[in-house]
Amino acid sequence: MSMSHTSELCDRVTEYRLVYSDSTWSRQRADCGHNDGLLSKAKIYESSTEDGIIWTVVSPIIFSYRVIQCERLLEANNDTLLFGHIADPVELQALKGNGKIQKRFVVIDETVDDLYGCQVKAYFESRGVTYKILPLPTTEENKSMRLVIKILEEVHKFGIDRRTEPIIAIGGGVCLDVVGLAASLYRRRTPYIRVPTTLLAYIDASVGAKTGVNFSNCKNKLGTYIPPIASFLDKMFLRSLPRRHISNGLAEMLKMALMKHRGLFELLEKEGRGLLESNFQGLEAARVSSRLAIESMLEELAPNLWEDQLDRLVDFGHIISPQLEMNVLPALLHGEAVNIDMAFMVYVSHERGFLSEEDKCRIIECMRSLDLPVWHSHCSLDLVQKSLRERIQHSAGLQRMPLPIALGQGGIFNDTEESVVCRAFEKWNQELHKDNVDVL
Amino acid sequence: MSMSHTSELCDRVTEYRLVYSDSTWSRQRADCGHNDGLLSKAKIYESSTEDGIIWTVVSPIIFSYRVIQCERLLEANNDTLLFGHIADPVELQALKGNGKIQKRFVVIDETVDDLYGCQVKAYFESRGVTYKILPLPTTEENKSMRLVIKILEEVHKFGIDRRTEPIIAIGGGVCLDVVGLAASLYRRRTPYIRVPTTLLAYIDASVGAKTGVNFSNCKNKLGTYIPPIASFLDKMFLRSLPRRHISNGLAEMLKMALMKHRGLFELLEKEGRGLLESNFQGLEAARVSSRLAIESMLEELAPNLWEDQLDRLVDFGHIISPQLEMNVLPALLHGEAVNIDMAFMVYVSHERGFLSEEDKCRIIECMRSLDLPVWHSHCSLDLVQKSLRERIQHSAGLQRMPLPIALGQGGIFNDTEESVVCRAFEKWNQELHKDNVDVL
Ligand SMILES: NC(=O)c1ccc[n+]([C@@H]2O[C@H](COP(=O)([O-])OP(=O)(O)OC[C@H]3O[C@@H](n4cnc5c(N)ncnc54)[C@H](O)[C@@H]3O)[C@@H](O)[C@H]2O)c1
Ligand SMILES: NC(=O)c1ccc[n+]([C@@H]2O[C@H](COP(=O)([O-])OP(=O)(O)OC[C@H]3O[C@@H](n4cnc5c(N)ncnc54)[C@H](O)[C@@H]3O)[C@@H](O)[C@H]2O)c1
Repeated sequence: MSMSHTSELCDRVTEYRLVYSDSTWSRQRADCGHNDGLLSKAKIYESSTEDGIIWTVVSPIIFSYRVIQCERLLEANNDTLLFGHIADPVELQALKGNGKIQKRFVVIDETVDDLYGCQVKAYFESRGVTYKILPLPTTEENKSMRLVIKILEEVHKFGIDRRTEPIIAIGGGVCLDVVGLAASLYRRRTPYIRVPTTLLAYIDASVGAKTGVNFSNCKNKLGTYIPPIASFLDKMFLRSLPRRHISNGLAEMLKMALMKHRGLFELLEKEGRGLLESNFQGLEAARVSSRLAIESMLEELAPNLWEDQLDRLVDFGHIISPQLEMNVLPALLHGEAVNIDMAFMVYVSHERGFLSEEDKCRIIECMRSLDLPVWHSHCSLDLVQKSLRERIQHSAGLQRMPLPIALGQGGIFNDTEESVVCRAFEKWNQELHKDNVDVL
Repeated sequence: MSMSHTSELCDRVTEYRLVYSDSTWSRQRADCGHNDGLLSKAKIYESSTEDGIIWTVVSPIIFSYRVIQCERLLEANNDTLLFGHIADPVELQALKGNGKIQKRFVVIDETVDDLYGCQVKAYFESRGVTYKILPLPTTEENKSMRLVIKILEEVHKFGIDRRTEPIIAIGGGVCLDVVGLAASLYRRRTPYIRVPTTLLAYIDASVGAKTGVNFSNCKNKLGTYIPPIASFLDKMFLRSLPRRHISNGLAEMLKMALMKHRGLFELLEKEGRGLLESNFQGLEAARVSSRLAIESMLEELAPNLWEDQLDRLVDFGHIISPQLEMNVLPALLHGEAVNIDMAFMVYVSHERGFLSEEDKCRIIECMRSLDLPVWHSHCSLDLVQKSLRERIQHSAGLQRMPLPIALGQGGIFNDTEESVVCRAFEKWNQELHKDNVDVL
C-alpha cells in the first residue's frame, strides 16, 4: 500500500481566491496583495503530487426563504399568494408595474381542491393570472416518484418562467413534499411555494427544506434539501380538517414542546384539548402555540438545513416511527406514528433516570388528551431494536438518540444500553397496552 | 389592491443569530451582547404585520469537492479510488485502521465495462472490498429518469452506508450525470465519485456540480447541482476512445480556450491534431492542455456552482446546441453540437465587429483541424431564432450571449440584433455549407 495520494502533501497547498472582472472569473493567489473586481466567497486550493494535481473547490451556496403566517390568503385583494415570496421592494414594484401577465402552476391535494378549489380559482381569475390547477391524490400511499414525474410532465406542458413563476403547492405534507421534489428537479431548481392545509404541514413540513417521496417501502427515501422560496401559512384551511388530523399535527407540536419549550408543553397540557375541539380556529392558544412551535422548529432547522449535523433534537419521535408508519400503512398517520415513538422514548428516558415518574405520567396524559395513540401492537421489541441498529448505521456509528431529560428539555444520547431499552419496552407494554386499542 | 404584506414593514425587522449549547439551538437577538456556545452562520429575521409574522431564514451550505488528476488509478497499490475523496489525514488514518470492510457500489458504462471491467473488479478484489458493479447502457438516448430509478433500486438492494461508502460512477458524461442525479436523491444526498472515461467528461462533466437527465425531448431538463465528493481523472482510459470522441472532448476544451485562454487556443492550433492522433496519450501537450482547460473551467464554475449568476462564459456554444443535439439524436455528439453552435457564434461575433476576418478564419481552421463539424443542415435560422428566444425567456429577459471578442477572450452581450443574427447566419451558411457534409 504505497503513497496516499491525498493527504501527505497538504503542506504544499496553494490557496486561490476568485475575482470577477470583464465577464471573467480569474484565480488569484490568496497570499498576493489586494485585488480589483468582485471577490467570490468560493475558494480553490491546489496541490501537486508526483502523479498529478489535486484541486479542492469550496463553494458556499446561500439558501434564503420566507415563512409567512397570514390571514385571508385567498381573498382577491391580498397580494401574498402572488407576490409574498418577493422580499425586495424594488423587485416587487418592478414586477407589479411591468404589466406582464403572471403565470402560475398550482398543484393541489384532491380533497383540498374539493373544499377550496373554487376559491383558489377565483383568486387567480380576479388577479388576471394565467394559471393551471392540477388536483392530485397526494396520499401517503401515492407518495412516489410516479407522482413527481406526473407533475413534471404537466409543468413542462404548461410552460413557466423558471425564475419568476414559482410552482405553488397547496395541501398536506404529502402534497408539499412531492411538489417540492418535482420543483427541485425541474431545470435543476425551480422556485416553489408551500401552502399547508393540514396542521402537521403548517407547523412542520412548511418550515424546513426537506422534500421527498417514499421508495421501496421506505419512508422519504428519495428527496432533496431544497427549501421553498416561501411558505404561506393560513389557519383558515384547518377548519375543515378532520379532528384526527388536528391530533396528528399536535403530535409534532408536542415534539418541539418536549425537546425545547416547557411553556409550550404546559400550554398544550392546558389548552390542547380545546385546540383539538375548535379545529385550531379562534382561540388565542392557537396563535400562541403555532408561533412557538414554528419558532422552535426554525431554530433547529435553520442552522442545519442540510442535516449535516447528525445530532438533531427534531429527530425525537423519528427513530422507530418511519418503519412503523410504513409497515402498517395506512393505519397510522405520520404524527400518530411519531407519537407512539415518543411515548416509548419517554419510557426509555424514565428508565434511564432522566424523567421522573410524575413527568412521565404528565407527558402520557397530555398525549391522551390530544387523542394521540401512545402504544401500538406493531411496535414490537424487534422493530425497536432493528430501528436502533439502523439509526446507528445511518448516523456514523452513534445512536444519537434524542430523549426528554425534563419537561421542555431534550438531550442527545449515545449510551442507551440494550437492557435499558428492553426494560423500558416491557414497562411501556405493561402500562400502556391495556387501555389502548390499535387505530385501524 | 391593499397592503403588500411583504415589503412595507422592513423597518421593524429583528435579526437573530443562532447559538448552540446543550444539544439545543437558540435564537439570540443580534443586537444583544456577546454569547456563549457555537455560533451558526445561519440567521433568522423576523417581522410582524397586522396579519401575522414573517420569518426569513438565511442559511449557507458549503459544498466542497476534490478534482484529482492522477495515474494508475486501477492499480492495486493505489489508494485513490478507495480513499482519495478523504481530505482529512486523521479521518483517513482512522478509516484505514478500523479494519472495517469497505463497501462500494459502482455504476459503469457498458462499453467501458467491456474494456476495463476486469481491472476494476481486480482492484476491488485485491483490496478486499465488498462491491457490486452495475454495468448500464448509459447512452444519450437512455439518459432518463428510468435509468436513475434503476440505479436507485440496485443501490437500495445492495445497501450502503450513506456517509462513508460513496457511489462510484465510471464512464462518459452520460454515466456521470445519471449516477450523480441518483446519488443526489438517495436519502436526500449520498456522496458519489466521478471517474470520467471520455475526454469530454474528463475536462467538463467531472469538474462541476451538475447532474441531469433528458426529459420530454429536452436536454438535461431534470437534475441537481450536487457536486461529487471527488472526481478522479486518469487519462489512461482515453486510449481506447474512438477518435471521434476525442474530437468531441476537444470541442469543450476549445470553448474554454476561446473564452478565457489565448495560450490554450494557440496550443490547440499547433498541437490539437497531434492530440487527436495520439488519443491524448503520451504528449506533453496533453498534460498541459488538460490542466489549462480544467483550471479555466474551475475558475468559472466554483464561484457560480448553482448558476445563480446568469452571465456565464461557459454557456458559449450552449445556446443553440441543446435543441440541435436533441433534434438529430443520435447523429451529433454533445461536443459536436456545441462546436456547430460556437462556429455560428464566431460569425455573429465577426458580424458585430468583435472578431477580425483573420481571427474568425483561424478559429474555424482550428475547429477543422480537430475534425469538428462547423455547420449542420438542421441548424436552421428558425432553430437559431427559437433558441435565442428561449434563452431570453430562461435568463430573466436578457440574451446573455457569450461571444469571443478576441482570441482567448469572451464577453457577454445583450444587444445582438436580429438583423445581425440573420446576416451572420447567411454568411455562415455561404462560407461553411459547401465543404461540410452532415455527420450521420
Ligand atoms: N418536509 C418535511 O419537513 C416534513 C415534515 C413533516 C412531515 N412531512 C411529511 O408530511 C406527510 C404527512 O403530512 P400530512 O399529515 O399533512 O398528510 P397528508 O398530506 O396525507 O394530508 C392528510 C389528509 O388530509 C386531507 N386534507 C388536507 N388538507 C385538508 C383540509 N384543509 N381539510 C380537509 N382535509 C384536508 C388530505 O387530503 C389527506 O387525506 C408525511 O408524508 C411526512 O413524511 C414532511
Ligand atoms: N455535468 C456536466 O457538467 C456536463 C458537462 C458536459 C457534458 N455533460 C453531459 O455529458 C454527456 C456527453 O458525455 P460523453 O461525450 O462522455 O458521452 P457518453 O457518456 O455517451 O460516452 C460516449 C461514448 O463513449 C463510450 N466510451 C466511454 N468511455 C470510453 C472509453 N474509455 N473507451 C471507449 N469507449 C468509451 C461510451 O460507451 C459511449 O458510447 C452529455 O449528455 C452532456 O449533457 C455534462
